[in-house]
Amino acid sequence: MFTRAGAPCARRLCCLRAHGAGRNCVTYAASFEFSLPSEGIVFGVGAAAQTGPRTAGIGAKHVMLMTDKVVRGTGIVDGIEKSLRDAGLAVSVWDDVVTEPTLPAVAAAVEYCKSGEYDTLVAVGGGSTLDSAKATSTIVANGGSFMDYVDPTRAATLKRGPRLVLLATTSGTGADMTRGAGAIDPATGIKHWLIARFRSNVTICDPELTRGAPAHVTAVAGTDALTQAVESYTNRRHNPMADLLNLEAVRICGRYLRRAVANGEDMEARSAMMYAASVLVGLGFGNAGLHIVHPVSQVVGDRYRIPHGLSLGLLLPYLLEFSLNGCVEKLVDVAEALGVPTEGLSDRDVAQRGIDAIRQLLVDVGTHRPLREFGATAEVLDSLADDYAKRPPDLANAPRPIRSAAELREIFRLAL
Amino acid sequence: MFTRAGAPCARRLCCLRAHGAGRNCVTYAASFEFSLPSEGIVFGVGAAAQTGPRTAGIGAKHVMLMTDKVVRGTGIVDGIEKSLRDAGLAVSVWDDVVTEPTLPAVAAAVEYCKSGEYDTLVAVGGGSTLDSAKATSTIVANGGSFMDYVDPTRAATLKRGPRLVLLATTSGTGADMTRGAGAIDPATGIKHWLIARFRSNVTICDPELTRGAPAHVTAVAGTDALTQAVESYTNRRHNPMADLLNLEAVRICGRYLRRAVANGEDMEARSAMMYAASVLVGLGFGNAGLHIVHPVSQVVGDRYRIPHGLSLGLLLPYLLEFSLNGCVEKLVDVAEALGVPTEGLSDRDVAQRGIDAIRQLLVDVGTHRPLREFGATAEVLDSLADDYAKRPPDLANAPRPIRSAAELREIFRLAL
Repeated sequence: MFTRAGAPCARRLCCLRAHGAGRNCVTYAASFEFSLPSEGIVFGVGAAAQTGPRTAGIGAKHVMLMTDKVVRGTGIVDGIEKSLRDAGLAVSVWDDVVTEPTLPAVAAAVEYCKSGEYDTLVAVGGGSTLDSAKATSTIVANGGSFMDYVDPTRAATLKRGPRLVLLATTSGTGADMTRGAGAIDPATGIKHWLIARFRSNVTICDPELTRGAPAHVTAVAGTDALTQAVESYTNRRHNPMADLLNLEAVRICGRYLRRAVANGEDMEARSAMMYAASVLVGLGFGNAGLHIVHPVSQVVGDRYRIPHGLSLGLLLPYLLEFSLNGCVEKLVDVAEALGVPTEGLSDRDVAQRGIDAIRQLLVDVGTHRPLREFGATAEVLDSLADDYAKRPPDLANAPRPIRSAAELREIFRLAL
Repeated sequence: MFTRAGAPCARRLCCLRAHGAGRNCVTYAASFEFSLPSEGIVFGVGAAAQTGPRTAGIGAKHVMLMTDKVVRGTGIVDGIEKSLRDAGLAVSVWDDVVTEPTLPAVAAAVEYCKSGEYDTLVAVGGGSTLDSAKATSTIVANGGSFMDYVDPTRAATLKRGPRLVLLATTSGTGADMTRGAGAIDPATGIKHWLIARFRSNVTICDPELTRGAPAHVTAVAGTDALTQAVESYTNRRHNPMADLLNLEAVRICGRYLRRAVANGEDMEARSAMMYAASVLVGLGFGNAGLHIVHPVSQVVGDRYRIPHGLSLGLLLPYLLEFSLNGCVEKLVDVAEALGVPTEGLSDRDVAQRGIDAIRQLLVDVGTHRPLREFGATAEVLDSLADDYAKRPPDLANAPRPIRSAAELREIFRLAL
């Protein structure tokens, strides 16, 4: 899987699977930081049954159990509520989380949490629910509202809020392993991000909780996980730990995402995808960051109200092709992790085949489709490109930064 | 490196590099836990210069800077002390840490810390110093003495003591990334272990701090790192994260330990070894545990006063050969990580060649030598084997538990 026939793999892959004679030296000479945005991960089929004892074990007494009505309707929450009550905890269920949460929805959760003086939030759901819980804890402890916390420099001085116990019901966002929390301003349709200071007290990853997710939810979530892993791996930061974890996640997504989407009862595939998304990718991109795929996709997703993971899948192959010349060696690693046959090919061609393999995977699970299917028109995309070019995000880590609206227009035209 | 010609590597290595058709399923169905025994790692050549700002950043005011006289004599500590003072912190240097710390030495550190009401311990040194700091923080906050904390069930209820900022000056123990702390009872010569509850506030890994370490110190420390990685990887626990990190550490030790010992100025090798020892192995074995190599080696090391890493090197190949039938597949992975040519060989033969490669590496760096060089005799070893069999440690995770004094006697005879 790692070896290209005839290539000196033992030297090229030596530590970080980064290529080139001097690369490891540079990588090791470079600095990196690493932290785990949870005080501990508990992983395994059936782990959700430990929610009660684990939550009691961190000193909780009075729990606000946050979820949405769809997840609650599956019955998953009942078992977790019982586990909490059996452990002697007082529990109130708040199931008003909305998909792609809005600022007012987060404010409502904050009011509920304050009114009940809950010391602990147990969140059960997808990224929307987990993000809502992280935001609620921060705002309850520090006052104000969501938009007071979008300035990341504020994070260092924030007080700790109610404890956080997070259980993901999808394998994709890594929201149970990162500090960010997104919410949409309904007035503008723009998604803003709050940066929480504190790690979750316990992150419980139970693949059984994802069993009921419909195929399209599994596909969109898995596309998010794959995108985060590839986007983080191909950025310009040298972080050997994040590289190791992100590349392992790419390999697992390549092997298991199709199976998880094809048959949601395939618990080996479900477990693999949860391990990749919640553990590996959450830690990988949480420590090493992303580059152009997320900000560009969000512009399109916000405009056409396309779910986050799907907006990534629509654009990922085009944005990687745009980036290719800036990260050929990293894309070779990605291709090899995806099992692409590489014999007799140049690095450049292997990199392109890696992108092709990603495109095929996304097509197979239904998350790579033309933008026009979502109502996109060339004119609106052109105007989005112009707007984006006026307020480009920080792309210092991009292998190839987008430097003009013209470049982005060209990408959008390919994707249309 | 990973591929054996003719072997179906793409299937065998799929996610966890664990072999066998059903293995991944079992692995994923199994449960695991993972935590980072530090609130954050800062890695890189020159990172020690950040000690002052990082320590101030966690709220420290009054620092006890713990080290030993040898490390202090190198001048390393001066720069760190200056960094702390430049950040506005009050600093007292306590350089009475002893190698292979004793219970009275830890008690002296505790008295000094209490008398000065220090809020933060900054420890600069090898495993002895880092362990002393961890033990001091626990005892200062919770009273009593070292032996009150060797019962691991006590850890959950302990109060947090002075903050911990840890800087390793050797690449081996992983003591900057684990919660345990060892100290020797001078009356018996036996090393006891305290289990701390809390993670370090900051772990700073600066490979530059290891540059001055003599070759034999580098060899012994590196042998400790390699042993922990192999011993943890070959145990019976299924922990995919720990497996990933431990196997990466094996690969790096195989590639860089000789270089770091041969030329301590080779900063690429120094950096690689610090990454392997402090980050990968600390997290790997810290989460997945060990099996028979550590407890057996400690019996011999305690008796003949052999430094920890060296006692491991003396015995590791014999204990792996004893264990082989219980972990053939894992040893195949180890062999491949070490670059052993495997073409046309059975798994059993590849596993044996992996052990041979480890033996050669240890011989090359001078840590695999006959026990008799340290004054060992067959009679004393036999009596140690008898004593050990009377109080065997918990070997539930051993691939092949030692079941009798006769088995251990046989191993000791080979090692003599």
